[in-house]
Amino acid sequence: MKKSLIALAVLAASGAAMAQSSVTLYGMADVWVGRTKTDVTGAPSVSTSRLDSGGFNTSRLGFKGSEDLGGGLKANFQLEGALGMDNGTAGGFRFDRQSWVGLSGGFGEVQLGKPWTPYDDTRSMANDTFNANFSSSFSTWLPYEDNPNNTIRYNSPNFGGFSGAIAYSLGEDKAASLTGGTSSLVSLSLNYANGPIVAGFAHQSEKNASLVPGYLAPGSTNLLTGAGATGKTTYNLLNGSYDFGVAKLIGGINQVKVKADGAAADVKANEYNIGVDVPLGGALEAGFGLARSKTESAGVDLTKTTGFSAGLKYALSKRTFTYLAFNRTKAEAIGTGLEAKNTLYAVGVQHNF
Amino acid sequence: MKKSLIALAVLAASGAAMAQSSVTLYGMADVWVGRTKTDVTGAPSVSTSRLDSGGFNTSRLGFKGSEDLGGGLKANFQLEGALGMDNGTAGGFRFDRQSWVGLSGGFGEVQLGKPWTPYDDTRSMANDTFNANFSSSFSTWLPYEDNPNNTIRYNSPNFGGFSGAIAYSLGEDKAASLTGGTSSLVSLSLNYANGPIVAGFAHQSEKNASLVPGYLAPGSTNLLTGAGATGKTTYNLLNGSYDFGVAKLIGGINQVKVKADGAAADVKANEYNIGVDVPLGGALEAGFGLARSKTESAGVDLTKTTGFSAGLKYALSKRTFTYLAFNRTKAEAIGTGLEAKNTLYAVGVQHNF
Amino acid sequence: MKKSLIALAVLAASGAAMAQSSVTLYGMADVWVGRTKTDVTGAPSVSTSRLDSGGFNTSRLGFKGSEDLGGGLKANFQLEGALGMDNGTAGGFRFDRQSWVGLSGGFGEVQLGKPWTPYDDTRSMANDTFNANFSSSFSTWLPYEDNPNNTIRYNSPNFGGFSGAIAYSLGEDKAASLTGGTSSLVSLSLNYANGPIVAGFAHQSEKNASLVPGYLAPGSTNLLTGAGATGKTTYNLLNGSYDFGVAKLIGGINQVKVKADGAAADVKANEYNIGVDVPLGGALEAGFGLARSKTESAGVDLTKTTGFSAGLKYALSKRTFTYLAFNRTKAEAIGTGLEAKNTLYAVGVQHNF
Repeated sequence: MKKSLIALAVLAASGAAMAQSSVTLYGMADVWVGRTKTDVTGAPSVSTSRLDSGGFNTSRLGFKGSEDLGGGLKANFQLEGALGMDNGTAGGFRFDRQSWVGLSGGFGEVQLGKPWTPYDDTRSMANDTFNANFSSSFSTWLPYEDNPNNTIRYNSPNFGGFSGAIAYSLGEDKAASLTGGTSSLVSLSLNYANGPIVAGFAHQSEKNASLVPGYLAPGSTNLLTGAGATGKTTYNLLNGSYDFGVAKLIGGINQVKVKADGAAADVKANEYNIGVDVPLGGALEAGFGLARSKTESAGVDLTKTTGFSAGLKYALSKRTFTYLAFNRTKAEAIGTGLEAKNTLYAVGVQHNF
Repeated sequence: MKKSLIALAVLAASGAAMAQSSVTLYGMADVWVGRTKTDVTGAPSVSTSRLDSGGFNTSRLGFKGSEDLGGGLKANFQLEGALGMDNGTAGGFRFDRQSWVGLSGGFGEVQLGKPWTPYDDTRSMANDTFNANFSSSFSTWLPYEDNPNNTIRYNSPNFGGFSGAIAYSLGEDKAASLTGGTSSLVSLSLNYANGPIVAGFAHQSEKNASLVPGYLAPGSTNLLTGAGATGKTTYNLLNGSYDFGVAKLIGGINQVKVKADGAAADVKANEYNIGVDVPLGGALEAGFGLARSKTESAGVDLTKTTGFSAGLKYALSKRTFTYLAFNRTKAEAIGTGLEAKNTLYAVGVQHNF
Repeated sequence: MKKSLIALAVLAASGAAMAQSSVTLYGMADVWVGRTKTDVTGAPSVSTSRLDSGGFNTSRLGFKGSEDLGGGLKANFQLEGALGMDNGTAGGFRFDRQSWVGLSGGFGEVQLGKPWTPYDDTRSMANDTFNANFSSSFSTWLPYEDNPNNTIRYNSPNFGGFSGAIAYSLGEDKAASLTGGTSSLVSLSLNYANGPIVAGFAHQSEKNASLVPGYLAPGSTNLLTGAGATGKTTYNLLNGSYDFGVAKLIGGINQVKVKADGAAADVKANEYNIGVDVPLGGALEAGFGLARSKTESAGVDLTKTTGFSAGLKYALSKRTFTYLAFNRTKAEAIGTGLEAKNTLYAVGVQHNF
C-alpha cells in the first residue's frame, strides 16, 4: 500500500559499470480526534476525548530501494517504522513495521529480517471496512503476530492470478520479549486475484505465543485456568472479496486453536467477518463490517465477541482524505454475566507522502 | 526558522491526475565546547569542561511536506526531532520537537498532533540574544510546556501584519508522564509584524503542570510548602522588538501564576527581559540580554532570579556560523541567604542543512 | 566505506549569494542466517540457529552533507546509526555510529561530536578477513571504545601518503553509562598509504574504562582479582598490508595495558593477527585471518585467546554481495583447565544504498 512518492534517480558512486537504482522516502501521517468509551460489568463507564495517531491506518515513515543486478535479478530493501503523530513517537522511532533485505527475480522473492507474515498479508487483502484500523475484525478476532523478528520469507511469482508465500521465524530470541511473546513461527498463504475477484487461504502457527489474548478476557480475567506461559497458537483463514462495481462484498472465516502447556484442554475460536465497501459517487466512499469471535474449550462455551464498524472516506486528492469512523465491540464471558463494551467515534485526516 | 534546503520535485505515484508536491529533509547540527560552573551556597563550586550539542539552537533532523489539493487548499505535515550531536542522540531519536499533519487555505491553517504552542512562538519571535538557547530569558524565567501532545492548533491568516493562533491539548494522557507533567493546555497568541516592528501578546494555561520549576528552588529546595502534585499554571506575555538598523531593541514582560492544589496561597512570578542585537559590519553580529524573574506568595517575596547573556555570531555562509556565548544566572531564595549561580562560557559552530 | 549514493543538488533557500551543497542519504542492509555454538568447560554445549543483522558489516542508515564556504573551506556533518535488520532496530534508532559537525580546509579537518577514534580507523584500515565483523582480530583481541561521546577530532591533510589524526574525549559524562564505560580518552594515529602499501601506528588511552573485557574471562570469570571499577586502559597498535595483486597480506601487533585502581599488578596483553585476502577471479574473493591475544600479570600468564576466520565474497554488483563466513575462537584461562570455544557459520547478503 506504500506508493513510491519520491523516486530519486541515483548512480552508483564508483566503478565504470554504473547501475541505475532508486531509493524512496515515503510515509503516512494519520491523526484523528474523537471519543472512546469502555463499559465493563460492575465498573463505572469510562469515556475519554482523544487526539490520537493512526485512526484509519498506522502513521509511518520509511525508506526502500531496489538495485537492478542484471539478468532479471534485483536486490531490495525496506525499512519502515510506526509514527505516533500525537506524541512525537514518544517511545523512540525504530523500524518496527518492516525491516528486511532480499533478492528477487524470475524465481520470486526472498526477504530476510522482519517482514510481514503471509497470514497478515492475506488478512489485509480482503478485510472489512477498508481494512482500516477500526475494522470490525481487528477489534473482534484474536490477536496474532504480524511481523516477527528473525524471519525468512519467500514470495512466489504470480501464476495467472495465483501467488503464494511462506515465512519461517527462528526462535533464537526465546528469552527476549518479542511482540506478542512469539518465538518460532511458520506462516504461509495462497492467494488469487483476478479482475473483481480476490480470494485467499492462510495459515500461521506460533510457538511460545502469549496465551491470554485480550478478547479471551472481558474485564481482564484469564479464562485459561491452569495454562502455562508457553504453548502454541494456530490460525487458519479463508477470505475473499468480489467487486460488483456498485459495491465490494468482503468476507472471511478464521479458526484459532490455543494449545497452552499445562492446560486441561485446548481453547478454540471460530471467527468470521463480513463487509461491504460502497462508492457513493464523487470522492465519497462508505464501508461497513460485522465480525464475531466465539471461543470454547472441551465443549464448553467461554466467550463471544461481536464487533460492528462503519467508515466514511472523503478523498481530497489521491494522497489525502478525511474520514469518519465508528466501532462498537462487545465481549462477553458466557454464563458469567460479565461483559466489556468498547465504542469509538472518530473524525480524522490521512496524508500520504 | 527551518529552511527548505532540499526541495524534491515529486509526482504522485498513481492515477491520471498528478499533483505536484514536495518533501523536504532538513536539519541543524550545533555543537559547542566550553565550561559550565555552578555555585550553590554551602556547597563546593562545581566546574565542568564540556563538549555538548545545541549551544545556540537545538540540533535537529526533520522531514516536511506539502501537497496542493487545488482551490487554495493544501495538506501539510512536519516531523522534527532533536539531535544530541555529542552522544549520538543517546536516548533514541524520536520526533519530539514537532509532529503534526494538517490542512491550510484561505481560512488559515489547522494542525493536529504535537505542534509548538502559540505562546512558545510569540516568545521565540521577540526574545533577547538572538533567541539562542543561552538567552537570559531562557535561563531566568519559569519553564513552560512548549510542544504538548494531543494538540489541535489553528493559525489565522495574516491581516495587514496581524496574525493569531490558538491551541488546545486534550488531557487524555493524564496518567502518563508528559514533558513538564502537563495534561490539558490552552495556548493563544496575537502577533503583529510590519517592517521594523514586531509585537505580540500570548497566553498559556496548563492543567496538572509540574509545580516545582527549577528556578523556584535555588539549591533544589521546594519553596511551595504544602503544594500537591497537581494544579494549574498560567502565563501571560507581552513582548516586541524594533529594528533601528544599527541595532534591534527587544523587550518582554511575562506574568506567571502557579495555583497548586492544596497550597495555602498561589505563587506569582513577575518577569521581564530586555535585549539588543547589533550588526557589527561584515559577517559579525553581537547580542545582549538581561532578564529577571521574581516570585512571591501571599505578599511575601520568595525568590529572585537574574540572568545576563551575551553572544557573538560570525557567519561563514547563510547556513553556517561560529559563535561565542556567555550566560550568568543567579537565583536566590529571598531572606534565606541561599543562592545558586550558573555560569556558561562556550565557543561553537552551527551548520544548517 | 560509505559511498555517496544519493547526491542531491541543493540550493541554499534564501539570500542572493547561493551556495551549492549536497546532502547524502546512505545505508547498508546486511543479514545472515547461520549457527553459533558455545562450549564452556563444565557446561553443556549451546548451539543456536540464527537470523541476525550485520554478519559482514554492521547494518546502518545515515545522512551526511557538505557545504562549500569558499576559500577552500567546507562545513561538514554526518549522522549515522546502526540498524538491527532482524528485529527492526528494537532498542530504538539513534545516531550511535557517527554524529558530528565540523570544518575542513587546507589545514585538515576538525570534527566535533561523536566521531570514530583514530585508533579505530587504523585498525579498520589493515585488518584481516576483509575487516569483516567476523574477522579473527575482532573475536580475539581485547575490546576498546571506538566512538566515544563528547569528542574533538583533528585529521591532518595527506602529505605524500602520510596522514595523522588525534582525538580527545572530555570526561563530562563520568557518572553516565557510556559504551565501554569510558570517560575521558585520547586517541591518535599516523598512517601511510601509497600504491600497494598501507601501514599505520595508533595509540589509545581510556580513563575509567570498563576493566573486565570478556576475553579476559572464559566462562565469565573475572581474572582481575582485587581490581576496582575504575582505572586506565592503553592500546598501542602497529599494522599494515601489502597488495601483491594475486593476494593481499595483512598483519598487525597490538599491546594493551590494563591498569586497574586497587589491583595488585597491571594486566598486559600481547596481541597479533595475520591475514590474506585473495581474489579468485570473476566476482569471487576469499579472506583468511588468524589472531591471538595473551594476557599476563606480574609475570604470571593469565589467558590465551586464539581465533581463526575465513570468508568468501561473491559480488552481485558494486553495491551488493553474498558471503559465507566462519569464525572459531578459543579462550583459555592458563593453568586452570577452563576454556571457552565460540564457533560461527553464516551465509549472508549485504546491500549498500
